[in-house]
Amino acid sequence: MATQNSATSSRPGGQLKTPKGTRDWVSRDLLLRDHIFRTISTVLERHGGVPLDTPVFELRDILAEKYGEDARLIYNLEDQGGEACSLRYDLTVPFARWLAMRTDVQNIKRYQIAKVYRRDQPAITRGRLREFYQCDFDIAGTYDAMIPDAEILRIVSEVFTAFGMGVTVKLNHRKLLDGMFAVAGVPADKIRAISSAVDKLDKAPWAEVKAEMLQKGLDEAVADRLGRYVRRSGSLPTLLDELRLDTKLCEVESVAAGMADLTRFASYLDAMNVLDTVSFDLSLARGLDYYTGVIYEVVLPGTEVGSIAAGGRYDNLVGMYGKRPVPCVGISFGVDRIFTLLDAQRNQNKKSGPELAHEADVYIVAFGGKEFDGLLADRMRVASQLWDAGIRAEFCPK
Amino acid sequence: MATQNSATSSRPGGQLKTPKGTRDWVSRDLLLRDHIFRTISTVLERHGGVPLDTPVFELRDILAEKYGEDARLIYNLEDQGGEACSLRYDLTVPFARWLAMRTDVQNIKRYQIAKVYRRDQPAITRGRLREFYQCDFDIAGTYDAMIPDAEILRIVSEVFTAFGMGVTVKLNHRKLLDGMFAVAGVPADKIRAISSAVDKLDKAPWAEVKAEMLQKGLDEAVADRLGRYVRRSGSLPTLLDELRLDTKLCEVESVAAGMADLTRFASYLDAMNVLDTVSFDLSLARGLDYYTGVIYEVVLPGTEVGSIAAGGRYDNLVGMYGKRPVPCVGISFGVDRIFTLLDAQRNQNKKSGPELAHEADVYIVAFGGKEFDGLLADRMRVASQLWDAGIRAEFCPK
Repeated sequence: MATQNSATSSRPGGQLKTPKGTRDWVSRDLLLRDHIFRTISTVLERHGGVPLDTPVFELRDILAEKYGEDARLIYNLEDQGGEACSLRYDLTVPFARWLAMRTDVQNIKRYQIAKVYRRDQPAITRGRLREFYQCDFDIAGTYDAMIPDAEILRIVSEVFTAFGMGVTVKLNHRKLLDGMFAVAGVPADKIRAISSAVDKLDKAPWAEVKAEMLQKGLDEAVADRLGRYVRRSGSLPTLLDELRLDTKLCEVESVAAGMADLTRFASYLDAMNVLDTVSFDLSLARGLDYYTGVIYEVVLPGTEVGSIAAGGRYDNLVGMYGKRPVPCVGISFGVDRIFTLLDAQRNQNKKSGPELAHEADVYIVAFGGKEFDGLLADRMRVASQLWDAGIRAEFCPK
Repeated sequence: MATQNSATSSRPGGQLKTPKGTRDWVSRDLLLRDHIFRTISTVLERHGGVPLDTPVFELRDILAEKYGEDARLIYNLEDQGGEACSLRYDLTVPFARWLAMRTDVQNIKRYQIAKVYRRDQPAITRGRLREFYQCDFDIAGTYDAMIPDAEILRIVSEVFTAFGMGVTVKLNHRKLLDGMFAVAGVPADKIRAISSAVDKLDKAPWAEVKAEMLQKGLDEAVADRLGRYVRRSGSLPTLLDELRLDTKLCEVESVAAGMADLTRFASYLDAMNVLDTVSFDLSLARGLDYYTGVIYEVVLPGTEVGSIAAGGRYDNLVGMYGKRPVPCVGISFGVDRIFTLLDAQRNQNKKSGPELAHEADVYIVAFGGKEFDGLLADRMRVASQLWDAGIRAEFCPK
């Protein structure tokens, strides 16, 4: 499907194609995509979500310094006089900007389904283009610790249950991660680089990750200490019990805070009946700078498609735009990746009809001899009456 | 509502607002907008329309030379290495590009509801921003003359009936217009400029339009001759009868062709029961270069909002991209203007609830003494059971 767009045809003056990393969506693909949107938004509205739609571009200044080294992937608009603008890179920053402007809003659960833009190498088979859809849900406002965080994972479970997908939520906590880095002895100026190496542990063996750490200038003893922590994963309650025995680790203030959060979190997830979808994964780091609490990635075991939803807590982002801080926690569904998975399923199950098919309830024709061409106006009249009655009808134009 | 975006708040490092001519859409506005989209797409699908979605930007080359002097309003993306791209200006050119690529498609009725971009002076009170939605429906392929053209006006009638709006369709024919210019003696190199003056006759008196013509270098005699034609408007059959008496005019080949088209058109509109929504308006010119046959604009008498839908036949556009010509006729609904009208109606009818309201079927609380704070996990359990059953539920977090 995606390959249809690599098709080009020559014409005087240029190539006939969509820009690199973009595609056209038509008919049955669009219907599947809309089904995905509707399924997710039904769950979100069941939880009190209200929709938000922001412009496709933002003042460049609003996006600046929110994405670390990924900022080079931002599409800028040409300077044609006026404001410097860029295409949105995600839906989180526009939401934070909106929330900072709307000082009348204390609490909100908002969702947004819209395209975002990244000048990345497109990975078409994995459903990742330069223009792709995201669907974000965020809970903003002051709540007792971990209550909205737990509701988000409950929502994740409802959404993927609706798609018939048995997913795993990989979970970690930014403060715990920071604490482990400190105890292991990672120098402050290397945390970012080492963190990105740790994040690769889901795809690469420890030896390879360790080699990258040494190459980035980490002492071998530090790498080994860190390795003992970040290689652990498993059931959240079990692993929390194990970590509690590590007194040296638990003495660190940020670790203690993270552990308290996660203990409470586990009890709420249990009450919401979703504790067993979670895998506590100490190597999960996530790239973005703005996370401050729990972080998570949703994967579908047995597929190569990568994370199909991801998010976490970001308590300081809104405060960067205004005077008031607004704590937030959110999830972003990778709807184009979900599309790729459901589409593969659909194609496996059965060959469906022609791509551009549509349905009519009535098709109006007139019969007559070979040269017969009358009754056109009558066919039109009949069609009009059916349309008046709300019936899907087409008439034969011959 | 639209004014919310002019609100800015100071912060270190820049203004906190959306880019000029753009706005955020939230909750009840979004619900009204979605109601508009659903209403229109229901009508379009009733007529066999299939949805299409194209990228927000196109190769710059694809857009080039399609918009005449309006091309200066196109948003370009910055050159960051790679292809030169621009934001789409309308949905017609992307459709023509798609159709030229899809050589397997002979006939299609497609619709697209999406944002388009114009670096124009925003006219917020009239619902016109720099980022705004359009909803396009086009019928492509070879049909007997005027059959799809008539179906489009039938669709216009169904759409606005669904909105409870009694609209008028102002109609003209490009060939008739060309013929009148020729008979009146307008020099070929002035046709564009004089045409744009003629198009102002719906807002300005003839004296003013004539003055503009003279200023643009037209002879007074030519202006007067042209004025006798373009100042006419009224019922399509009546005005056609009148024009038929003008033998000098009807001798011109393009006039004869336009008259034949419109005569047939009137009979089809009659069969489809929409003839009386049409006002034949010889001053209607429409700016875009690509129209070749009937052109129309939909207005709501008694409002200042301008045309709320517009379109016409463009038989040569697709051929500009590929080897094969594909005749097309289409309509573009100005959904943001329709929103402005329906929103004003809504606000007149009654004060509605808070902007960010949402609905829940069940709200779960626990009662107890002043210091009571138990049963949180129980509330979560109850909420989870309701969510499992698809019921919209929220629990009190305290």
